[in-house]
Amino acid sequence: MKKLPEIKSMDDLRALLQDLPGPDDAAARRAAAREPQLTKPQGSLGRLEDLSKWLAAWQGRHPPRLDLVSAHVFAGNHGVAARGVSAFPIEVTRQMVANFLAGGAAINQLCKTFDVALTVDEMDLERPTADFTLGPAMTEAEFVHAFAFGMKAIDRDADLLCLGEMGIANTTSAAAICLALFGGTADRWTGPGTGVEGEALGRKTAVVGDGVAVNRAAMTDALEVLRCLGGRELAAIAGAVVSARLWGIPVLLDGFVCTAAAAPLQAFRPGALDHCRIAHGSAEPGHRHVVEHLGMRALMHLDMRLGEASGAVLAVGLARAAVACHAGMATFHEALVSNRSDF
Amino acid sequence: MKKLPEIKSMDDLRALLQDLPGPDDAAARRAAAREPQLTKPQGSLGRLEDLSKWLAAWQGRHPPRLDLVSAHVFAGNHGVAARGVSAFPIEVTRQMVANFLAGGAAINQLCKTFDVALTVDEMDLERPTADFTLGPAMTEAEFVHAFAFGMKAIDRDADLLCLGEMGIANTTSAAAICLALFGGTADRWTGPGTGVEGEALGRKTAVVGDGVAVNRAAMTDALEVLRCLGGRELAAIAGAVVSARLWGIPVLLDGFVCTAAAAPLQAFRPGALDHCRIAHGSAEPGHRHVVEHLGMRALMHLDMRLGEASGAVLAVGLARAAVACHAGMATFHEALVSNRSDF
Repeated sequence: MKKLPEIKSMDDLRALLQDLPGPDDAAARRAAAREPQLTKPQGSLGRLEDLSKWLAAWQGRHPPRLDLVSAHVFAGNHGVAARGVSAFPIEVTRQMVANFLAGGAAINQLCKTFDVALTVDEMDLERPTADFTLGPAMTEAEFVHAFAFGMKAIDRDADLLCLGEMGIANTTSAAAICLALFGGTADRWTGPGTGVEGEALGRKTAVVGDGVAVNRAAMTDALEVLRCLGGRELAAIAGAVVSARLWGIPVLLDGFVCTAAAAPLQAFRPGALDHCRIAHGSAEPGHRHVVEHLGMRALMHLDMRLGEASGAVLAVGLARAAVACHAGMATFHEALVSNRSDF
Repeated sequence: MKKLPEIKSMDDLRALLQDLPGPDDAAARRAAAREPQLTKPQGSLGRLEDLSKWLAAWQGRHPPRLDLVSAHVFAGNHGVAARGVSAFPIEVTRQMVANFLAGGAAINQLCKTFDVALTVDEMDLERPTADFTLGPAMTEAEFVHAFAFGMKAIDRDADLLCLGEMGIANTTSAAAICLALFGGTADRWTGPGTGVEGEALGRKTAVVGDGVAVNRAAMTDALEVLRCLGGRELAAIAGAVVSARLWGIPVLLDGFVCTAAAAPLQAFRPGALDHCRIAHGSAEPGHRHVVEHLGMRALMHLDMRLGEASGAVLAVGLARAAVACHAGMATFHEALVSNRSDF
């Protein structure tokens, strides 16, 4: 694809999602054919073997490469924060963006550790989305703008993209999206986020339920769910997931908020997340459920719940290991090692 | 410690194990005090936070460092291989050592990926241990020699040590050790290893049970279990675990065989593995059980079952991430980010 399609309305977006490219089967076949020749018992690298095949299939080349790995963090503010759903004040979103830019956050250290290029985009922080307990968080124009921003923001030369977010109150938004998409009760999806507990957690749970109830009529499909209950950074993540698909870039999704931002794509169009892997299972309790509903399986479980793409970038280590083994190992033939089929 | 103690007998070893140094509580306290000041919600880096505290405690310094990470792979051959318990012929042990030295194996690619210095020691490959279904795998002299070899082999300047093994038939040895230490039935501990199944798996299970029955009288303590059912590479791993403790080097244990080699230390002297973490949960089914019996928890579960220290070196990525975040992140105060305690 030379140029991204212009997205001017939610209907443009709906049409685009019906027409997503698939994996490169030839590259996947070449990966699958090489793996059993490598000097190790069949299947003994477990999920690393899946990762290299997945990277080949979605990069559309074999062997897959990880020359440029990029991480993109989108930051947004949420009107619903005014309902007291977070342990931190809303100013922290901007303060943490400044911390990202100054290199002081966890994500900066992780990007240095795994040689990942970090980009941070703040999205109208001075203008939070509307409080979704009173009506849709975004107008169609706001939503489409944020989605298209995410689509354009990513580096098309990346070999692998890590997505993440920063936004005080956005686990509330994520919980509401999951409740609307997958059902159940609000407490199934609502967790401590940055650390709310007791009475405040009860209030947060009620806010999640209210948000879904108030917007029920407007949420006629999964994209409307993202518009009504999401935030700008969540819409941008969904946009980035879609343009990564168009550019042939595999995606590592971070934890609960990032997965909830991508989930509407899969709910709208099954298979829309096939070029994605969930990097880690967050300690935020709703994450386990959404991962299950998506039929996916997180790569790691480290009790993390930070966001900022931190889990996604941590999983870059696994991806680099997978590619190094797949591309660099000797075959039984090259190394003169007896294969089990030889005897 | 300036010099390793001389180990000339199993009784020397028993005495040494009673007198292991503990963690550096002051370094652990400094790590615990810094963590809540960093710009993230409390506890949000999950197990990475535990890793940096653990590294500080056992390196005896704060912040912990990972300037030199080393991996040590010990290779040995097992008499019990003659019983047809592996999918690969015994020659493969030597062939894979050659592959390690030539840089063609998975462990070579992983060490390159995570900047880990690899050392491979082959241990009398031309002289397999005795078939443990006929009596002890090693004499006391052989066992003590292999254990002391492992103790001396590691680099005392390492900041973190990854341990692993190569040895056709050594999952049979590992299963027998676990059966002798923790009980149950032989099939609880016996798995496919490199890929045995069906009738061959039944034979392997019987061999594991026979080994424990035949050596029962000789196995008067956990070190005797390792002597009677282990192999030279397993004894060397146990020795390396002990000298790492003496030198103040935290250890990442690999999968089933490596954990089974270290388990007798913990069974003999509770706490002997406190300076170790289990890098990954192997797909070899017995691993889950031994990890549980040790009261430990693997860092990752990636369905790997290769050995060669592959899982341990993969977890170096997590350790590097942990140290980078702990040492490199800004504090709330430095970054002018509002902490929840501020409001």
